[in-house]
Amino acid sequence: MDPEAFLDLANQVIKLKMYPYFDVAHSLLCALAVREDLGAGAQSFSRKHPLSCWLSTMLVIFAGGMVANGLLGEPILAPLKNTPQLLIGTVTWYLVFYTPFDVGYKVAKFLPVKVVASAMKEIYRAKKVYDGVTHAAKLYPNAYVIMIIVGTLKGNGAGFTKLLERLIRGAWTPTAMETMQPSFYTKASLVASIIFVLDKKTDLISAPHALVYFGIVIFFVYFKLSSILLGIHDPFVPFENLFCALFMGGIWDSLAKLLGKGQPKEETKDAKKTN
Amino acid sequence: MDPEAFLDLANQVIKLKMYPYFDVAHSLLCALAVREDLGAGAQSFSRKHPLSCWLSTMLVIFAGGMVANGLLGEPILAPLKNTPQLLIGTVTWYLVFYTPFDVGYKVAKFLPVKVVASAMKEIYRAKKVYDGVTHAAKLYPNAYVIMIIVGTLKGNGAGFTKLLERLIRGAWTPTAMETMQPSFYTKASLVASIIFVLDKKTDLISAPHALVYFGIVIFFVYFKLSSILLGIHDPFVPFENLFCALFMGGIWDSLAKLLGKGQPKEETKDAKKTN
Amino acid sequence: MDPEAFLDLANQVIKLKMYPYFDVAHSLLCALAVREDLGAGAQSFSRKHPLSCWLSTMLVIFAGGMVANGLLGEPILAPLKNTPQLLIGTVTWYLVFYTPFDVGYKVAKFLPVKVVASAMKEIYRAKKVYDGVTHAAKLYPNAYVIMIIVGTLKGNGAGFTKLLERLIRGAWTPTAMETMQPSFYTKASLVASIIFVLDKKTDLISAPHALVYFGIVIFFVYFKLSSILLGIHDPFVPFENLFCALFMGGIWDSLAKLLGKGQPKEETKDAKKTN
Repeated sequence: MDPEAFLDLANQVIKLKMYPYFDVAHSLLCALAVREDLGAGAQSFSRKHPLSCWLSTMLVIFAGGMVANGLLGEPILAPLKNTPQLLIGTVTWYLVFYTPFDVGYKVAKFLPVKVVASAMKEIYRAKKVYDGVTHAAKLYPNAYVIMIIVGTLKGNGAGFTKLLERLIRGAWTPTAMETMQPSFYTKASLVASIIFVLDKKTDLISAPHALVYFGIVIFFVYFKLSSILLGIHDPFVPFENLFCALFMGGIWDSLAKLLGKGQPKEETKDAKKTN
Repeated sequence: MDPEAFLDLANQVIKLKMYPYFDVAHSLLCALAVREDLGAGAQSFSRKHPLSCWLSTMLVIFAGGMVANGLLGEPILAPLKNTPQLLIGTVTWYLVFYTPFDVGYKVAKFLPVKVVASAMKEIYRAKKVYDGVTHAAKLYPNAYVIMIIVGTLKGNGAGFTKLLERLIRGAWTPTAMETMQPSFYTKASLVASIIFVLDKKTDLISAPHALVYFGIVIFFVYFKLSSILLGIHDPFVPFENLFCALFMGGIWDSLAKLLGKGQPKEETKDAKKTN
Repeated sequence: MDPEAFLDLANQVIKLKMYPYFDVAHSLLCALAVREDLGAGAQSFSRKHPLSCWLSTMLVIFAGGMVANGLLGEPILAPLKNTPQLLIGTVTWYLVFYTPFDVGYKVAKFLPVKVVASAMKEIYRAKKVYDGVTHAAKLYPNAYVIMIIVGTLKGNGAGFTKLLERLIRGAWTPTAMETMQPSFYTKASLVASIIFVLDKKTDLISAPHALVYFGIVIFFVYFKLSSILLGIHDPFVPFENLFCALFMGGIWDSLAKLLGKGQPKEETKDAKKTN
């Protein structure tokens, strides 16, 4: 592919308008996620508790913005002032839950629809991560950790509000904390945030900004599609294992065990407990 | 009744000062609600955990303002800067929990006292809903949903902080979420917020503002008194059922069942699970 | 001791710089507290969930500032913008959890190290309480209760975020609310906040400000060391019992029991339930 045409494409991706098509795709997948999370009881739940169902779906749709605002001292409700987006969210929620003969849900679950919507959602996610990093960088120009946290939260806010979202639906699952078992989206958003911060604040990345952004979009879309179509769920696992072995005590623990120190017995006991 | 005199009365109601009598009534009923919520163990709990008891009562008294502030990016503690109101709250809390021979509690539970305080509290609630809507409208002039949410939260904040309030007292009841079983107060505040928004932002309501406000006050007081004296608890239920049947899938579900589609078996199973 | 030399010393204590040594002591004890809280499974937990472990340690280290910011409408993440402090926190966390053969943890647990760090942390705590009171007084010059709340939260923020901190680690312990069984640190911070408010806002305390501050530092350090070395855990208990007997119904309840009134039976039943 011609490098210039590639850069042109990258520049177009960076200027892509999110409203309305990407908002629709995002809302659709969020409403689907809520419905899947409700499991077999979804239909009867949506009939009995429409308010709770609507509130939790809105929370999922606007999670990133709300969490980031809450942590940055800005109004948590502010994302809801975008009335067209709220309307799109409400309409897709209605379609997924209440259409006659469940037509809306079945269409949304139809593989080609889901694949296209997922790809669009990942493009949206890349934009949100970037916006989060930029916004935090404006507020705290030297606080890299804040930029990374805000970028990650914007990228996968719904993961971090899962507990609250379920609580709105009357379910409490304290062990489902995102921090305990970060999903692929959280890890990907974290990596993307770090790359954006490096790109913005240091000279380590010499590629033009549009290319960096485009690369992250491709990375997000590629792994999302692999996950749907090929069932590859977390390409980060080997890197994590390596990192943990090197820095999080893995090697030392093995050494200590070999040398008969480091409370090997206690550890085996612990491992059983926590498993 | 003379319409002009009626309008005059409405104009007076709108200018009614809340401090101090309405604050006393509100605080008294909040402290009573905390005590009822503690159940049979209230007395011994208040002796063993006075700090927790005071904090949770203050949370109930100032819930509306605190929740609304939290969601609008304003200081959550700000409502506590009103020292006279805080003093009233503390004194009523003390009277309800710690007077010798439980005199305070018994007086507060005495029906005529309770009826008058309840009526005053409803007048206060109408004012809080209106203030909430106005405040949100100032911040986000076009975000109707934010106005409605803030109005509702100001009207029945204590319902939404119930989980936190109980947590302060060491009890955790995740299934008691207001969103799952909205109380009459929440529904009434929601309807009042919608009416205030329509009155403020559209031309749909042609009556003078004072009359609209007065109408809502009468509606709140009337149903509160019916609830205490006649035991009518939720006049919204028939409207809700109608709305759900029309828009939330009720009719379509029945149709689908008749036609033998729409997974009737699964639904019966679900209904058992969620009941 | 020469009073002038004493005042000089007090003036020096008030100007003491917290960075970096006091930050190190504070972070070290926070990381230790997280490790102790994890119990026997700490080592294997830190290997399996490093992210969750890091996040909860950072939450403990920055708890006071974050909670106070959250309640005062300021950015919750703001304390993290202090990059050197964040680095110190991360390094001490790493040392406590991941050093080969657990050297870091063993050194930190070594009594002389712990005693020195604890004394430094108490000096830090006194400064944080004072800063909290001052900050709240700037925002709300007449709201004494807000000053006291913010001072207390800054002094023992980790106590109040314990539930959230454990939740980040996937554990949910709703009965461990600080408000139910306030620790000595909370009570001491509360008393210190009240003294600072009296010193700042009234003429009741005639001693120079530096002396008041120094007195509180000595009080904090003295009781911390008694607690570590002598096992005295809560010197407030007798005062609390007296206060409760006088004002929180103790005497009246006894009187009521003697007179055969005040539902003695119900109370005994309650006491059994709540015990």
